[in-house]
Amino acid sequence: MSRGTLFIVAAPSGAGKTSLVKALVDSCPQILVSVSHTTRAARPGEREGVDYHFVTADQFQSMADRGAFLEHAEVFGNRYGTSQQWVEERLQAGEDVILEIDWQGGAQVRRLMPDAVSVFILPPSRETLEQRLQGRGQDDASVIAGRMAEAVSEMTHYVEFDYLVVNDCFETALGDLRSIIIARRLRLQVQREKHQQLLTQLLS
Amino acid sequence: MSRGTLFIVAAPSGAGKTSLVKALVDSCPQILVSVSHTTRAARPGEREGVDYHFVTADQFQSMADRGAFLEHAEVFGNRYGTSQQWVEERLQAGEDVILEIDWQGGAQVRRLMPDAVSVFILPPSRETLEQRLQGRGQDDASVIAGRMAEAVSEMTHYVEFDYLVVNDCFETALGDLRSIIIARRLRLQVQREKHQQLLTQLLS
Repeated sequence: MSRGTLFIVAAPSGAGKTSLVKALVDSCPQILVSVSHTTRAARPGEREGVDYHFVTADQFQSMADRGAFLEHAEVFGNRYGTSQQWVEERLQAGEDVILEIDWQGGAQVRRLMPDAVSVFILPPSRETLEQRLQGRGQDDASVIAGRMAEAVSEMTHYVEFDYLVVNDCFETALGDLRSIIIARRLRLQVQREKHQQLLTQLLS
Repeated sequence: MSRGTLFIVAAPSGAGKTSLVKALVDSCPQILVSVSHTTRAARPGEREGVDYHFVTADQFQSMADRGAFLEHAEVFGNRYGTSQQWVEERLQAGEDVILEIDWQGGAQVRRLMPDAVSVFILPPSRETLEQRLQGRGQDDASVIAGRMAEAVSEMTHYVEFDYLVVNDCFETALGDLRSIIIARRLRLQVQREKHQQLLTQLLS
């Protein structure tokens, strides 16, 4: 059994990351999205262990203190983290794991898992990004400008990633993500373990 | 314009390489199979510059003498070679180029083009390989045994390649080859040149 690959997927808000990753996981076997730990309260419909692992501030802090997180961050007063143990168990079981995180989380993970493969998703144009960040058109111009500034700031980090995917046509971008994952699984080191029996038979 | 990638594709006879590469080139834009130079006579239906560049033994030798070949070999008294100039021109034009060669040619090419990406194609089982090498059932057992020994000898070199593709289901193997090529085109260095304008616009 060959060890799985950890994929880091980052993008500015409005690039369509979440829909792409959901479609990817639904259509690809043996790939999982990491479920984060969070101190924020569950919203109606959210399920423990599926959407998040809901923990108290004390539990979170104690995990952080003993280095249990691959990466963690605070957003609007709530804390979010990725359990290293969970990720390790999945990788050991030969599954690929996707972390949907921002560039800062990506940088933290890369330090601990230098073999991680990272993908940055870009919107197809500034206009599309602006439209998507306007949401339902009920927000102040200043709120939208703030979101835009944040998106631009996130995008300046694209150079730190291994792959760039432009989400122009959804199906093409999905195919691109799938190709990155499939190609990774076809590398010699992975395949020679997977096809050990076949290789022995062919070379005998 | 970003430089294309050189792909080396090798396989034992009977692995289905030629059909796979043909289907790949027919279904993928901006990828070409290199046309070899050869000293062998054109067979009926073969076209100059499409199937081969047909040259005399003297012309071939003079090209070899001035290092014009990325790789060359002699098979059953005929010489075959890949023109470095032609490959360079296509790569410079941003096209990907596939070389269908054996492990020895692959080793020669890798020395001159260390950025080349190499793929080895395997048959799905020894039985399938044997069936395919029996051809139309009109050959001696010793001829078939000779082909099998040659195929096994070629396959012992699979470890020198970057990727392994098992040609069990044709469509899956074709998708695998396509994923390797697409993933290569999504790497940061290629994408940042291709999407220079978009990146400037998004980050402004």
